[in-house]
Amino acid sequence: MSETDAAQLTADLIRCPSVTPTEGGALVLLENLLSDAGFECTRVDRGEVSNLFARWGTKGHDRTFGFNGHTDVVPVGDEAAWSADPFGAEVRDGIMFGRGATDMKSGVAAFAAAAVDFVTNTPPDGAIVLTITGDEEGDAIDGTTALLDYLDSEGEKMSVCLVGEPTCPNEMGEMMKIGRRGSLTAYFKFSGKQGHSAYPHRANNPLPAMARLMDVMSSHTLDEGTEHFDASTLAVVTMDTGNPATNVIPAECKATLNIRYNDTHSGASLTAWMQGLVDAVAADTGITIDMDVKISGESFITPPGPLSELVAAAVYAETGRTPELSTSGGTSDARFVQHHCPVVEFGLVGKTMHQVDENVPVAQIHQLKGIYTRILRDYFA
Amino acid sequence: MSETDAAQLTADLIRCPSVTPTEGGALVLLENLLSDAGFECTRVDRGEVSNLFARWGTKGHDRTFGFNGHTDVVPVGDEAAWSADPFGAEVRDGIMFGRGATDMKSGVAAFAAAAVDFVTNTPPDGAIVLTITGDEEGDAIDGTTALLDYLDSEGEKMSVCLVGEPTCPNEMGEMMKIGRRGSLTAYFKFSGKQGHSAYPHRANNPLPAMARLMDVMSSHTLDEGTEHFDASTLAVVTMDTGNPATNVIPAECKATLNIRYNDTHSGASLTAWMQGLVDAVAADTGITIDMDVKISGESFITPPGPLSELVAAAVYAETGRTPELSTSGGTSDARFVQHHCPVVEFGLVGKTMHQVDENVPVAQIHQLKGIYTRILRDYFA
Repeated sequence: MSETDAAQLTADLIRCPSVTPTEGGALVLLENLLSDAGFECTRVDRGEVSNLFARWGTKGHDRTFGFNGHTDVVPVGDEAAWSADPFGAEVRDGIMFGRGATDMKSGVAAFAAAAVDFVTNTPPDGAIVLTITGDEEGDAIDGTTALLDYLDSEGEKMSVCLVGEPTCPNEMGEMMKIGRRGSLTAYFKFSGKQGHSAYPHRANNPLPAMARLMDVMSSHTLDEGTEHFDASTLAVVTMDTGNPATNVIPAECKATLNIRYNDTHSGASLTAWMQGLVDAVAADTGITIDMDVKISGESFITPPGPLSELVAAAVYAETGRTPELSTSGGTSDARFVQHHCPVVEFGLVGKTMHQVDENVPVAQIHQLKGIYTRILRDYFA
Repeated sequence: MSETDAAQLTADLIRCPSVTPTEGGALVLLENLLSDAGFECTRVDRGEVSNLFARWGTKGHDRTFGFNGHTDVVPVGDEAAWSADPFGAEVRDGIMFGRGATDMKSGVAAFAAAAVDFVTNTPPDGAIVLTITGDEEGDAIDGTTALLDYLDSEGEKMSVCLVGEPTCPNEMGEMMKIGRRGSLTAYFKFSGKQGHSAYPHRANNPLPAMARLMDVMSSHTLDEGTEHFDASTLAVVTMDTGNPATNVIPAECKATLNIRYNDTHSGASLTAWMQGLVDAVAADTGITIDMDVKISGESFITPPGPLSELVAAAVYAETGRTPELSTSGGTSDARFVQHHCPVVEFGLVGKTMHQVDENVPVAQIHQLKGIYTRILRDYFA
């Protein structure tokens, strides 16, 4: 019975200083491990980003279980504030410290170790594909997207995919992610005509237009939530003028708002809705209103079904907890994978991610490997 | 026929460096001139401010014509930018240069010279009172107010009063002032609870409350104007947050607005109106809204009547122009005098006041003295 030590593998990965977009030896290490276990490995580097594709079993098999993760990490930050070498993987009282300890070298190590041992001990009737990128924390343009482009062009596939990002807020097993809200930020500039406060009719004050537009937008109920999503939210985050003179009407002011939206909307539908209000207020006030919308990501969902049930059952069996099927939180590469196949995310507790003294209990790495192993066993059963 | 040279007197006053609150010799010079002509003079100094009260004729006479003005001046500013000594009273091509040339040593010189010559040549059946302050450009707490307090406590009076401030925008004689709009500035601070843009329900965003309040206030028509006043105006002059993070809901934001109001309103009535809206928005949003109102001056009016007709007729006779009866422009000491007696303002062209190379055509000083002389003659006729 082969037994790959996922904690040791996590430590080895932490010791590779793979701050985005540096490969740092992390993908080479994984490629060697996987090749030795019979995986066909291909480096899918694009731009300055290194990515690894690995498949065990028949190409394009109908029953291909996919894992997705990343070995790149965010910068160390204030290194003097760390109590351990950020690239040392020091273990104190059963806790391993290092950049990427939770996000997400432990996750990659857990699914790589699970996959290697599974194909070695009980070769399945099907295939296992690992897509591991070196650019999830950066622009993410040449990362998982490049791997998915490779799958498409080479006739490779994943029937389903599990992203190994940390998903649990506090306790191991309490949450998995089946989708994500979309997010957009809209920037508004209001341009009028400067003048003296005592003679507003000779000026054209942009501030009432800003107040009107932000009032109308923030008063609107976007929706009441949907089956798997909370209600969409709109937050005005700043309104600024910077005019110190109370006897002067300013020529210009600015506002910014952020919308987190569910599957009722798209970036395009919300942009059209905002543009309609902008046009109405501009026509009503004679103020020129420029709007610039940046869409960070559209909402997506893998509706509860076989994949989420498979993962939830394994989590329950290993932890005693039934994970909540959540669509909360920030973005991840699942937003790309969802275009290829059903995708869910499950990983360990993410509390210390991106922080000084990022760390992971060693026992949690072993537990995560156990969950991933059970998922593979149940999937191919 | 005595003939006091108002231009020479203006030059002598300009040479007194009487930047607020420095007396600079200006009031002493006037006191000597007026005493020699039979005026009873009293210095009514208060705090660090010097003021001069001068009366010719019987104390408390029913027919007492008053003049009001100031000898203090604003600072020189960028002295290197002046083409003449700011305290030199240099005359070039018939133009006299110096700080206070228009605002308002020429006005004080013109009414002092007119009064001196008038009582000397044709002693009237009545009294003439001059109230001249050394603090109009500063806080104005111990200036004309101190003189009016003195009048009240000593049984002195002015039946009517003419303030000699510059009132003509471009041409001599085109405008007099019979009142002024009030002005107030309201400062608002909106305090909520900071949070993440993705979870607005865990925060309490102060920005929608600011947008709502500013929209409601700036959408409101305060009035349609009154017989002698333009419509009141409300200008939101700044709205600020200073939040650079689009994923953060800020805890606080601020707005400021300025209201110029006519005799439909008072500072108190407008403050009550605003407080009502503040309370409604605060109750509706759960945002704490602090409001701080600074009233610069209430609106006042001396309705068109004998005094304005007297002045307008004299202006027409001397210049050929019928002055507009205006309530426009910034504040002046007329706002204090109006509590004592009917008051109007008439003076020369104010274009260069407070500027570098402040100047006055010498001929205009003589013309102004002529107008003031005719006003006295007609008043006592």
